[in-house]
Amino acid sequence: MSAAARHSIDGALTFDVFGTVVDWRSGIARDGAELGRAKGIDLDWFAFADEWRALYQPAMERVRSGEIAWCMLDDLHRMNLDILLARHGVDGLTEDETDHFNRAWHRLDAWPDAVAGLDRLSEKFILATLSNGNVSLLVNMAKRARLPWDAVLGAETAGAYKPQPRAYLRSAEMLGLAPERCMMVAAHNGDLAAAAALGFKTAFVRRPHEYGPGQTTDLEPDGAWDFTAEDFLDLAAQLGC
Amino acid sequence: MSAAARHSIDGALTFDVFGTVVDWRSGIARDGAELGRAKGIDLDWFAFADEWRALYQPAMERVRSGEIAWCMLDDLHRMNLDILLARHGVDGLTEDETDHFNRAWHRLDAWPDAVAGLDRLSEKFILATLSNGNVSLLVNMAKRARLPWDAVLGAETAGAYKPQPRAYLRSAEMLGLAPERCMMVAAHNGDLAAAAALGFKTAFVRRPHEYGPGQTTDLEPDGAWDFTAEDFLDLAAQLGC
Repeated sequence: MSAAARHSIDGALTFDVFGTVVDWRSGIARDGAELGRAKGIDLDWFAFADEWRALYQPAMERVRSGEIAWCMLDDLHRMNLDILLARHGVDGLTEDETDHFNRAWHRLDAWPDAVAGLDRLSEKFILATLSNGNVSLLVNMAKRARLPWDAVLGAETAGAYKPQPRAYLRSAEMLGLAPERCMMVAAHNGDLAAAAALGFKTAFVRRPHEYGPGQTTDLEPDGAWDFTAEDFLDLAAQLGC
Repeated sequence: MSAAARHSIDGALTFDVFGTVVDWRSGIARDGAELGRAKGIDLDWFAFADEWRALYQPAMERVRSGEIAWCMLDDLHRMNLDILLARHGVDGLTEDETDHFNRAWHRLDAWPDAVAGLDRLSEKFILATLSNGNVSLLVNMAKRARLPWDAVLGAETAGAYKPQPRAYLRSAEMLGLAPERCMMVAAHNGDLAAAAALGFKTAFVRRPHEYGPGQTTDLEPDGAWDFTAEDFLDLAAQLGC
């Protein structure tokens, strides 16, 4: 990076991760299928991934509402995995096997454009996660998928799950930036709406296959977002990177 | 990175930053001299850097002891800067000029071996800061100096200043690792002693000019540290990177 390029950095892009940066559905199905082959478990692992993800918001809502004490996403994923394994009558896994499968969320692959796009964006902006994933999940994921985060922030560092305002505001504060100097990048309109209400700039990135071939939600931007991009390379181009 | 190399990652190196990774004394003196030229302030800026650093531990101790509420290092640096400017009769700075100089700590240069050493270490280990610097200070520093951190952790994310145990233990916890799977890397024996007492592995890196040509402390390891290295390239070699 040239000295001139360095001095042009005066803001941050804050990223939703699950669905926006990485393809959780394919990754969970892949690791499930691997487990199934090893242990003789015959399930539709894409459907299993969908079921696991469907339990995600309700579990976080128990934390947001105060029904249960703070716990990180790995722990919520594990509660939900235990529910699903019981539902499907899977009872032959050791603790190590169950824990390893639970951490499939640490091993998700980036969408094909994501790393190249982030590398370009990194020359001009601070890149931070603003995710409900816990720090170790996001760090392990980034190390494996080579995601060039400058900071791994979100629910665990803020002590609040999106869309609670504290998740966004504390992340901006830790970056030393007013919300107006942060742009939330997400494939989900709800995340952008919550960020925009707090002063963040917003970029919607289309991920029309996040929920598989029959996706019906978040296919189009539904707010007056600052940018709408086809993928991270398109976003980089629109932002002059 | 090859798939095999990725799978060899099973622990983290956690780094002290000021003095271990970056040369605070030269950086502060450089930015002070620049300010002095612009504003006609004639001071010994290396001595000023030493005075500023001398107020660092006492200021943190006020937080550790509970005398004052939690505040991040930028704020402690600013309190101390105001003390020093008054001590030296400097009263012609605007708020913007004072704030810019206070953030000289965000613009410190890495020791000459640091980036190349970290890049090598990064292929085998998770690299995290475990610093008393606040997140934005460390992120801005890393962006400018190209320090390849996987996670920016420390006092602000733990809510405690080293050498309080929580600073170390919460950082390991956020990385999802037992202390035994973390190695503290520092040029300061006291930092290593605090980490070792909690189960961290330890690496002492010599920085004999951190405090200038007359340095008298931390010239040699004074504990049974796991590694002693001449610099980060030597550490990388000793760790098989």
